[in-house]
Amino acid sequence: MEKAVNVGIVGMGVVGTGVAKILLNQGHLLSERTGQRFVLKTVVDLDWERERGVDLSGVEKSTDFEALVADPTIDIIVETVGGIEPAFTMVRRALAAGKHVVTANKALIAMKGKTLFKEAEDHGVELRFEASVGGGIPIIKSLREGLVANKIKNMYGIINGTSNYILTRMHRDGLDFGAALREAQTQGFAEADPTLDVGGGDAARKLTILASIAAGGFVEFNAIPVEGNTELTTLDINFAKDFGYVVKLLAIYRFNGEKLDLRVHPTLVPGDHLLAAVNNELNAVFITGDYVGDTMFYGPGAGQTPTASAIVSDLVDLAHVLQTEKTASITTVNPEKQVPLFSLEEITNRFYLRLFTMDQPGILAQIAGVFGKHGISISSVVQLETHGAENYVPIVLLTHEASEKAMFKAMAAIKEFPFVRPDILRLRLFK
Amino acid sequence: MEKAVNVGIVGMGVVGTGVAKILLNQGHLLSERTGQRFVLKTVVDLDWERERGVDLSGVEKSTDFEALVADPTIDIIVETVGGIEPAFTMVRRALAAGKHVVTANKALIAMKGKTLFKEAEDHGVELRFEASVGGGIPIIKSLREGLVANKIKNMYGIINGTSNYILTRMHRDGLDFGAALREAQTQGFAEADPTLDVGGGDAARKLTILASIAAGGFVEFNAIPVEGNTELTTLDINFAKDFGYVVKLLAIYRFNGEKLDLRVHPTLVPGDHLLAAVNNELNAVFITGDYVGDTMFYGPGAGQTPTASAIVSDLVDLAHVLQTEKTASITTVNPEKQVPLFSLEEITNRFYLRLFTMDQPGILAQIAGVFGKHGISISSVVQLETHGAENYVPIVLLTHEASEKAMFKAMAAIKEFPFVRPDILRLRLFK
Repeated sequence: MEKAVNVGIVGMGVVGTGVAKILLNQGHLLSERTGQRFVLKTVVDLDWERERGVDLSGVEKSTDFEALVADPTIDIIVETVGGIEPAFTMVRRALAAGKHVVTANKALIAMKGKTLFKEAEDHGVELRFEASVGGGIPIIKSLREGLVANKIKNMYGIINGTSNYILTRMHRDGLDFGAALREAQTQGFAEADPTLDVGGGDAARKLTILASIAAGGFVEFNAIPVEGNTELTTLDINFAKDFGYVVKLLAIYRFNGEKLDLRVHPTLVPGDHLLAAVNNELNAVFITGDYVGDTMFYGPGAGQTPTASAIVSDLVDLAHVLQTEKTASITTVNPEKQVPLFSLEEITNRFYLRLFTMDQPGILAQIAGVFGKHGISISSVVQLETHGAENYVPIVLLTHEASEKAMFKAMAAIKEFPFVRPDILRLRLFK
Repeated sequence: MEKAVNVGIVGMGVVGTGVAKILLNQGHLLSERTGQRFVLKTVVDLDWERERGVDLSGVEKSTDFEALVADPTIDIIVETVGGIEPAFTMVRRALAAGKHVVTANKALIAMKGKTLFKEAEDHGVELRFEASVGGGIPIIKSLREGLVANKIKNMYGIINGTSNYILTRMHRDGLDFGAALREAQTQGFAEADPTLDVGGGDAARKLTILASIAAGGFVEFNAIPVEGNTELTTLDINFAKDFGYVVKLLAIYRFNGEKLDLRVHPTLVPGDHLLAAVNNELNAVFITGDYVGDTMFYGPGAGQTPTASAIVSDLVDLAHVLQTEKTASITTVNPEKQVPLFSLEEITNRFYLRLFTMDQPGILAQIAGVFGKHGISISSVVQLETHGAENYVPIVLLTHEASEKAMFKAMAAIKEFPFVRPDILRLRLFK
């Protein structure tokens, strides 16, 4: 009953090495569980000088990707090169050559998924990407298979580990943004250039993937409104805490049955919500389906061994596909289906607004007047006394549900006041 | 490409009716997602007088289970009768007749799984049971497929909704056990006879299923030590809270690489652990794998539509199996494999001990002396002053890690003291 499944890996960086470790170290377990033997036949990389901490004796070490694609004994190719190019060309070549492909590459799936899934379909092979969102959490499988009976009403994802680590340190330990970021970099969670992480771009790529699956049609990455964490101060974190909230960078999916509301931005999450308890570099996706109700999937969103764990689960699924010689009928993403998105202007939210004003009488009345004029109702205000030589005092307002458009106009009007400092921060509340 | 998959349901109670609702109402969605058409052909029940809140026109309503089994057009039978008999006989008959079977029946899988999986294998069909643990949470799929690359080191499950609801109300709102139980019954979470829920038996059945999958061999349900919630008082909940803990009824799986430590008992969970934030009737399973690290799966553990959501995910998987005409190679449970269990005596834990003593001098010293004699080190003691006419005062002790055997002996010795009331409560701390 035991069959060999021959695997090639291209890109022996951190994640590729992790996949090699599992295939070499957990071979007996995988064979016992699946009745199939996974053989790591070839690994392709340009650098074979570096020590990787895994014994590759018996594995062909190559620098020639084309030879891997041309090898008729290779069943599945794992792409762990990362980025768009050359990964895109490589995955396309592999699919066209009739190989199943597994990737952890969220940028590739988010930006080039439509082309690649078409390529896979044309050649009767599959492209799997469990590790592209939520690292080791089996979130793609849960969404496509476990929750297959459900229309997905809402998803709220904490899907950028760096941002969550920074926010946790700010909330729990009072660090400012810069110090928390430097710590994340020291700990190895954050890239040298953290723009994609703290700017929300990484979360938006992952949201594109989750939303396409949930909605059953490809979502345009560029159409998602994205705001990052970079303007958050410890003052805001502490105000939020006093109001009973924890600030989390959320990737948001809300479906009203016709149009999708997709966004990435820092969000005030109620302190007793389960998402508020997701801390440090950990990830979680909170999903509400029309039949199942509320669910949450939690775990490590990155790292060598969690990511490799997800990739190997894809390998096992593909081994079943190889055995049956039919592609699995998980056809949740229809490349022809257009899913209309709400523009930010069309939606409503509750807002947190923090601004600094000069300490003069009558200012709060004037600001409140602007809100009233734009039909925005204030639910809570805090203005602190000044102590010492500060010229500006912070004012924080929470609003009831209001339209984004009205809030945009109100903020523009408030910025015109000569007594208001230009660094106004607007956050949104969880709903 | 669209094929019909003919489904029969036996047992049109709450859950069976839920499955009918999804098949009848989400047909378009399922067809779009899977390329297959799910047809609810026949429903079998003895009572066709009752109003079920679902329009069954076009579906054959029958009282004849044998006719369902004999119908060659039926591909899959859903068993939602519940309990051991007649469900056991029915499932066995269906498998022997070459039908795939889906069940939500945890008692059946926990107690008769070995026989039934053998029966399924002998007839080249599959028995699926996603809904048997954690209701709508795709926990079985996540464990068998999503985490397939991992040896499972630990699992901690909050897998009885009634108990969790009661504990949440006691912790948050100060209700005593009886009042919280009555409320759970009013809300429809608890059975009229709640013994299985609050006694831990229901959680032990589910743990049997999870442990068998994780360990890859059948676990004997009767070998699992089980303690319930029934002796917990609000005093204990509040002491635990003061120490920084939340009491949860946990199903515990710990594997040291050779032997399994399985238990069900109320456990003091640290207040900042994610499991402590799982409240009300909700369920969660916290799983640590050797490659993935810590993960958690959360959602509704019972109820009509969540349970039906899980059953339909099994139907979709089986539709793939039907299409390929091969059984899926998810062979994680080997009926021949014996997994040795630790006896309770062999393991160590940290303990919470609450006892009432007469208010006399020197008592604490005598109790502490017993612990010392048995090599148990005390980490924390609280003895409260008496107010009013109470003859007995509560003493609560937390211990460092100690053997269950030593603790058993120490408790027996303490019970001998004439100044100690017999209602001593021993709980365990999360580790």
